[in-house]
Amino acid sequence: MKKVLILGSTGSIGVNTLEIIRRFRDEFEVAGLTANNNIQLLQEQIAEFHPKTIVVGDKTKSLELKKLVGNTCEVLSGKEGLLEITKRDNYDILVSALVGFIGLAPTIEAIKQRKRIALANKETLVTAGEIVIDLCREYNTELIPVDSEHSAIFQCLNGEKKSELNKIILTASGGPFLNKSRMELEEVTIADALNHPNWKMGSKITIDSATMMNKGLEVIEAFWLFGLPSEKIEVIVHPQSVIHSMVEFRDGSIKAQLSSPDMKLPIIYALSYPERFEFNGVTTDFKKINHLTFFEPDFDKFTCLRMAYEVIREGGTSSCILNAANEVAVGKFLSGEIKFSRIPDLIEDALNTISKIYNPDLETIFDCDFKTRDYLTQKYS
Amino acid sequence: MKKVLILGSTGSIGVNTLEIIRRFRDEFEVAGLTANNNIQLLQEQIAEFHPKTIVVGDKTKSLELKKLVGNTCEVLSGKEGLLEITKRDNYDILVSALVGFIGLAPTIEAIKQRKRIALANKETLVTAGEIVIDLCREYNTELIPVDSEHSAIFQCLNGEKKSELNKIILTASGGPFLNKSRMELEEVTIADALNHPNWKMGSKITIDSATMMNKGLEVIEAFWLFGLPSEKIEVIVHPQSVIHSMVEFRDGSIKAQLSSPDMKLPIIYALSYPERFEFNGVTTDFKKINHLTFFEPDFDKFTCLRMAYEVIREGGTSSCILNAANEVAVGKFLSGEIKFSRIPDLIEDALNTISKIYNPDLETIFDCDFKTRDYLTQKYS
Repeated sequence: MKKVLILGSTGSIGVNTLEIIRRFRDEFEVAGLTANNNIQLLQEQIAEFHPKTIVVGDKTKSLELKKLVGNTCEVLSGKEGLLEITKRDNYDILVSALVGFIGLAPTIEAIKQRKRIALANKETLVTAGEIVIDLCREYNTELIPVDSEHSAIFQCLNGEKKSELNKIILTASGGPFLNKSRMELEEVTIADALNHPNWKMGSKITIDSATMMNKGLEVIEAFWLFGLPSEKIEVIVHPQSVIHSMVEFRDGSIKAQLSSPDMKLPIIYALSYPERFEFNGVTTDFKKINHLTFFEPDFDKFTCLRMAYEVIREGGTSSCILNAANEVAVGKFLSGEIKFSRIPDLIEDALNTISKIYNPDLETIFDCDFKTRDYLTQKYS
Repeated sequence: MKKVLILGSTGSIGVNTLEIIRRFRDEFEVAGLTANNNIQLLQEQIAEFHPKTIVVGDKTKSLELKKLVGNTCEVLSGKEGLLEITKRDNYDILVSALVGFIGLAPTIEAIKQRKRIALANKETLVTAGEIVIDLCREYNTELIPVDSEHSAIFQCLNGEKKSELNKIILTASGGPFLNKSRMELEEVTIADALNHPNWKMGSKITIDSATMMNKGLEVIEAFWLFGLPSEKIEVIVHPQSVIHSMVEFRDGSIKAQLSSPDMKLPIIYALSYPERFEFNGVTTDFKKINHLTFFEPDFDKFTCLRMAYEVIREGGTSSCILNAANEVAVGKFLSGEIKFSRIPDLIEDALNTISKIYNPDLETIFDCDFKTRDYLTQKYS
């Protein structure tokens, strides 16, 4: 029986993880859950899964929840609560599914605890990839990706030698604006941007899909996870999201991992690895799928994707700046403060303004994240 | 330095194997070559690769070749020559690339010699699958498939557990007559049938592609190689031949192996396994491939494929009858004796007439093969 701690249990990955645990009651139990402010759903999850400890990000909401749940579980709050819950030893697997930079610090605590990390939080590797990978090596901690793309690559590398890997081909749905012109992008609404064709996800990642920054973050993540230079990480637009990603070996042979798009598959894999559990929740029928298409991404239209490649080449804290600026910009778009087409402008501004530091330690990264947010928040308020 | 013995060196697989050996002179050398009657090409191959021993199927041609090559190598002939060359111990890898039932006996000799078998000869498993698999187990002999489909499956199973395999999805190009109606099939010519859209292969296998018997033989081959019941071996038509085949695991995840269609990739893999050699002879560009399509095969039109599934369920010598009848029927079509649409009729006739024997030994299989050929040759002469 493995004990699972889920950071971000009311988000899309968290809810899907609990659905998996519900199906595999003999394999997993819930050690802890965390949510930012959706205490209604959190209360339902507590009633069903009986975690020992809960963290609520919002302090006022945490007090509300405390009243509701009484003595059934311990309720912590805020960033300190996230660090506290991950530092404990009463779990086996961390599902790191917070949205944004806030996921970094607790994930690092779990790495130091030598817990298996099922990593859905992209920002952990985007902002502090080198430190995180080094820590995993030092503590001999398993890092299993939950992103469908990186899970695909991870699965394709099973039984293969990394030294024989030639290239990674990350597939991208292209998001809701794949066929819009740059001009048309000027006029898109929040509702347009939240209307993803294939995946039902949280709002931040859905906007990242619309700008293709999501794919950019995934390129950076792949760079750290699989240790290939950026020129060997290719992005190909594949609107059906059936091929989740591919790897090419040095003999020219390519392997792909496929399925109907459903996050439950990478989640179950990250929990069950190296086994595969019997699961019939996702079926893929090629007769119905009928066709798969591929084309080159438009780097001129999706400047966020281009910038992601640039920060890999630049190194140091530049990917941290990119990420923080993107979080601020997406927040401002979702709150109606800026137009969709302005998102890359804010990121570019931050990348041109905030000074980069090479070989940063963790403190420098936190500092850089803060400075970037502060700069953009003040300038575009 | 591995020594390679190629049965069928002047055929498509043989020529491609020699091209691989030419590129990897430090890894491989040629121990022996065999051909049926193309002694001109064989002589060129001898001059370039210096094999110690040669077998020519046709006895008259073998005498001709003897005169041409003098003392540079030993020249054997006929079926006895094939058994003699495979029984020797002076090679490491057998590339079994003869066309048809004649490939069975020498392949069995090599299995008993504990040589790695790079298996391109489908009939070995189609006619004597159980015996061959048992012998490989008994002699601890590696059997690596060279068919692009089975190589794909073999590669997808790397690092995975067979017990977690749910289903095999064999892709089929559908051959040149994919979009012809049953009526139109009545009128096709030999030239039409030899005009395969994706693969340049020998005439027997090209006709088998046109009837989809080739896919049927591959279903039988997969049945023996991967140990799944026939209802877990699915065929899907995929006209671009880019996805070479797929496997579905019990968690619902699917893996595929892909590349531009080129037999050099499965050959190099069978030679280099478990390594992958650096090879840039085959490139796959998804931006150029642009789209992949899939649909259900038409079992009413391609009755050969339906019959292949039936003989698996029937068991015993029925797959041997199917194969022998198909060889005779294809021969008769290629020599202009019967129309294309008559090929399945002859096979059906043989399956209804020749008595089946269950749990056959090797002698019974040879006998069944002989009887089937004899019956059809006499009846349709």
